[in-house]
Amino acid sequence: MIESLNSPHVGRVKALISSRGSKERSESGLFIAEGIQCVREALSSSTGPQLQTMYVTNSALEKYSEVLDQAQCEVLSISDDVARTMSDTVTPQGLIAVCEIPNNSIESLKPATKSKFIYLSEVQDPGNAGTIIRSADAFGFEAVITSPNSVDIYSPKVVRSTVGSLWHIPVYQEVPLDEILNWDCTFVALDTAAETPLSKIALDRSVVAIFGNEARGLHNLKGLSASKDRITPVRIPMPGNAESLNLSVAASIVMYQLANIPTS
Amino acid sequence: MIESLNSPHVGRVKALISSRGSKERSESGLFIAEGIQCVREALSSSTGPQLQTMYVTNSALEKYSEVLDQAQCEVLSISDDVARTMSDTVTPQGLIAVCEIPNNSIESLKPATKSKFIYLSEVQDPGNAGTIIRSADAFGFEAVITSPNSVDIYSPKVVRSTVGSLWHIPVYQEVPLDEILNWDCTFVALDTAAETPLSKIALDRSVVAIFGNEARGLHNLKGLSASKDRITPVRIPMPGNAESLNLSVAASIVMYQLANIPTS
Repeated sequence: MIESLNSPHVGRVKALISSRGSKERSESGLFIAEGIQCVREALSSSTGPQLQTMYVTNSALEKYSEVLDQAQCEVLSISDDVARTMSDTVTPQGLIAVCEIPNNSIESLKPATKSKFIYLSEVQDPGNAGTIIRSADAFGFEAVITSPNSVDIYSPKVVRSTVGSLWHIPVYQEVPLDEILNWDCTFVALDTAAETPLSKIALDRSVVAIFGNEARGLHNLKGLSASKDRITPVRIPMPGNAESLNLSVAASIVMYQLANIPTS
Repeated sequence: MIESLNSPHVGRVKALISSRGSKERSESGLFIAEGIQCVREALSSSTGPQLQTMYVTNSALEKYSEVLDQAQCEVLSISDDVARTMSDTVTPQGLIAVCEIPNNSIESLKPATKSKFIYLSEVQDPGNAGTIIRSADAFGFEAVITSPNSVDIYSPKVVRSTVGSLWHIPVYQEVPLDEILNWDCTFVALDTAAETPLSKIALDRSVVAIFGNEARGLHNLKGLSASKDRITPVRIPMPGNAESLNLSVAASIVMYQLANIPTS
C-alpha cells in the first residue's frame, strides 16, 4: 500500500491535477479521472481514454469491487491520507485513475451523413465545457471540437463535469475554426442578437453548432472572412427578462432542438 | 472608510456568507449580493430584494459610478483588504450589497391564466438552483418555488449563479408540494423513466414543472397520495449515450419547451 505522501505516485498525480497541470498533461499525455462514474465508463467502454493506473483505497476497493474486478490496468492500493492528497474534490471517493489522453487528430474526422458537431470557441469555464460534453453525448452528437485558447478538457473540473461522457464522445482540442469551415455542413452560431430562432433551422445535412466565450461571445469569429457567408447566427427565443442564459444551458438547448428536428 | 478587519461591518457580512450563514440569514432577514450585475439589477428593478447597505471600494466606486449614483441606500467606503475579507469570490469586484430577504408568502401566490411555475424538490447544488432561477427568468416564468430541505436561495453561490435574476422573478422557499397541488394547473415532473416526451405536453392552462434532487430524483414525491393522479411524468428524448443531463440543463430545456409551446 502506498502510504507516504512523499511517494512519486503522489507527486505525479498532484502535478497532473494542479492549476499548472495543463503543461504537465500535455507533456506526459496523461490526465486524472476521479470517482466511480468515470472509472465505470472507462471500464465498460471500448472507446475513449485508456486507463493506465488506478489508485484505490481499501474501502473503495470493497465498495466498488464488482466494477474494479474488470480492470485490466495496474491497480495500486493507497491509504486514505494519500487519497485525500491525490484528490481534487472535497469528499474524495478513494478512486483515482491515471488515463491516457487520446491522440485525436482533426484530419481523421469527416462528417458523415447528417452528423452533428459542437465547436467551442474560447470557452473558459471548466463546468460549462464539461456539462456541454455531457449534453453532446446525451443528444447523440458525433464530436466536440474546441478552439485554441479554450479551457483544457483534461483538467480535473472539466473531466468531473462530463460525468464519464469523455468515454462516449471524442474531443478534438485546439482546432482553428477555419480548419473545418470547408466541411459540407450547416454552420450555426448562437448569438443573442440573431434574427433566426433556433426552431427555424432546416437540417438537410450535417451541422456544426458554434458557441463563443462566456463573456465576449463570438467576437473572435468576426475576423474570419469566410465565416460571414458560412455561419448562420441563431437565437434562443426568451420571452422573459434575463439578458442571457448560462452558456452550458444555452448550448444544451441548441443541442436538444437540433437532436429533435426531423431531418428531411 | 472602513479599514479594520475587526469592524462589526466585516463580521456581519462574513456571518451572512459563511457556510453556516443560513441560520444567520434567516434570523436577520438579510443576505449578501456581490458584484455589479446584481447591484445593477437591484437598482434598476422595482421588484425583488431591497438594498439596505452597500460596501464599495474606491476603485469600484470610480468604475461603476453611473450605476452607483442611483443608489438610495447607505453606501459605505471600504478598503481593498476589507473587500477581500467580505467576499465569497476569488476575484472580488469590490462591491458588496446587504439586501433584505423578501417576505414572499405562498398564500398570496395564485396562478393567473396560463402562467408557468418551477417547483424544486430538495435540489441541493447552489449552482443548479441559481442557474434554474436565471433560466426561469429568461423564459418568462412567474415564480420559482422550493421544497423544504432545498438549498438556501440566499446563499452566496446561488445568488451569484442567478446573475441578477433574483430581482426579476420571485422565489418562494420551503413550500411543501401538497400546498400547491390543489392549484388549477397542469403538473409535470421530469423523470428519465417517463413515457411522455416533453414535446407532447399540451398546454391549455397554467403549468407547474417539478424537478427532483440531483441524485435521488423525485423519490420523496412517491409518498404523496395525491401526486400520482395530478402529476404527469415527462422525459427529455436523448438519442445519445449519457444516462442523464446536468439538472440545471434539463430544467432549462423543459422551460424552453414550455415557453415555446403555442398555448391553445
